Amino acid sequence: MKKRTLVTVIPVLEREQMERIAAAAEKRGFEALFFDTEEEALPALADAEIIFGQFPSLAGKAPVLRWLCTPFAGVDPFMTPGVFASPEAVLTNSSGAYGVTISEHVVMLALEMLRRQPEYQEIVKRREWIRNLPVRSLKNSRITLLGTGDIGQETAIRLRAFGPACMTGVNRSGKNPENLFDRILRTDGLSSVLPETDILIISLPGTKDTFHLMNAERLAMLPDGALVINVGRGCVMDQKALEKELRAGRLQAALDVFETEPIPAEDSLWSCPRLLMAPHVAGNMTLPYTKERIVELFLEDFENYCAGRPLKRKIDPERGY
Amino acid sequence: MKKRTLVTVIPVLEREQMERIAAAAEKRGFEALFFDTEEEALPALADAEIIFGQFPSLAGKAPVLRWLCTPFAGVDPFMTPGVFASPEAVLTNSSGAYGVTISEHVVMLALEMLRRQPEYQEIVKRREWIRNLPVRSLKNSRITLLGTGDIGQETAIRLRAFGPACMTGVNRSGKNPENLFDRILRTDGLSSVLPETDILIISLPGTKDTFHLMNAERLAMLPDGALVINVGRGCVMDQKALEKELRAGRLQAALDVFETEPIPAEDSLWSCPRLLMAPHVAGNMTLPYTKERIVELFLEDFENYCAGRPLKRKIDPERGY
Repeated sequence: MKKRTLVTVIPVLEREQMERIAAAAEKRGFEALFFDTEEEALPALADAEIIFGQFPSLAGKAPVLRWLCTPFAGVDPFMTPGVFASPEAVLTNSSGAYGVTISEHVVMLALEMLRRQPEYQEIVKRREWIRNLPVRSLKNSRITLLGTGDIGQETAIRLRAFGPACMTGVNRSGKNPENLFDRILRTDGLSSVLPETDILIISLPGTKDTFHLMNAERLAMLPDGALVINVGRGCVMDQKALEKELRAGRLQAALDVFETEPIPAEDSLWSCPRLLMAPHVAGNMTLPYTKERIVELFLEDFENYCAGRPLKRKIDPERGY
Repeated sequence: MKKRTLVTVIPVLEREQMERIAAAAEKRGFEALFFDTEEEALPALADAEIIFGQFPSLAGKAPVLRWLCTPFAGVDPFMTPGVFASPEAVLTNSSGAYGVTISEHVVMLALEMLRRQPEYQEIVKRREWIRNLPVRSLKNSRITLLGTGDIGQETAIRLRAFGPACMTGVNRSGKNPENLFDRILRTDGLSSVLPETDILIISLPGTKDTFHLMNAERLAMLPDGALVINVGRGCVMDQKALEKELRAGRLQAALDVFETEPIPAEDSLWSCPRLLMAPHVAGNMTLPYTKERIVELFLEDFENYCAGRPLKRKIDPERGY
């Protein structure tokens, strides 16, 4: 009997992790094939029943595909109609693998902004001894987390230890996951909490509903000096409107994600003051723990797939996450 | 009856805080005088019974002084014999005011080093889009806190939320404050934990016992890639020995305190790689919360003083803290 095929295209996987995937596949009657690039994988895609891969274009070249698992949390590249060559293919993501690394990034960014760390690093670079910049604290800060999934929850767990005045979660369902938040507002109540927000943390996926959710009007509701941190998707933020607030000296921001990535060379954002930028690194696969979780989560759903059970991290194409 | 005098020399105090001190003094039959500089305070020091002040030299100019409270936690400048003109003067510090701000600084520094933030900031400055630097995490890290006072405890509370593998406290007493640490070692057992330490956090006072506690021999016991963070006193670290480890590419460090402050212009530390420096800002009075705590702690001991009770933050000249 011909073996069914599982094609894995995640070049950063460790040998040991590939061996674990191969062993699990073998046990279930699958042949596991591993490739580093789309080009290398191409001949194998014709027969692929399952793809565990990081390049969205793989989906368009696998006509008999039943399941694609992306190692990322964001699935926006798969939401365009016609991305999948196979009409039967379902999509899962690796939500749950990034909370640890992204929450650490968020705490770091918040502290850097509150403690004027970029300015102090400039002072040190000039070999000066200036110590009197007023700083702020997470303690007693009013924090709003826009997005309460894995990332928002792991962030809330860590921020709680710093003694914030309150942590408000904002989501679609109005449910308070694990009771981690002091209160939960539905997304349509977002405007009510913005004027009382010292630190706004955005971890929303990029969907038609979240596009430019933080527009000029909502940004204007934030109090003077508020911090805005976006580690979700760039399209949630009206970048031009934010830039205006930053150049006016009213808000401070840290962006890990952008409306266009990589940021175009001529983009005025590169020279924007009061902005801490990073090239989308809060949640990539550079942390070994994250990579390990991605493999674990995939293998969990692989067992579900083989047993005919529902896939745990299945994406709802209507919602977009 | 002539009023007794309380001289306050802390230029950064808010008007409201001075008014609170003046009211408490008045109630207890003291006249409170406020000055911004030593020169201004000089005429008042002759009669000063109490000084609440940040300049150590005040102690040498107050012949009838009974009590000096420094707004800082470190008291090393007062440990030289002859600093006090009055033989009866007791010294208290403001230990307990700095844990919040310094612990936030420590978490920020640890995350910046683990997540390669200085390098990513250089990448952004060059307008490049490089995303693949391997990062590390507080999760599952083995953390050793050398010093388990206010600063060590507040740091442990915050780090716990990040899921470290273990947190070892090292102190003189062998006691585990509030059970915040997974285990406690006495200072003489420090060497046993260094080879199993991913992140070493030092918050020790500067005393004859802590001088160069982290010498070349002990630094060499740390595993390759370990992080060293010093927010206590610079003299705890053999700076030359640390610099050697950093230049060899073996360790990574963040120093907020130095053997000589300000750092001399010609010091080779300025150009040392793998080192995050700051001009002694982890715990100064630039955070309003800290300033408020300093006033609260002083007023608490002022009530103790007036009631003839022992002062809560009295320094033991023998121990040096």
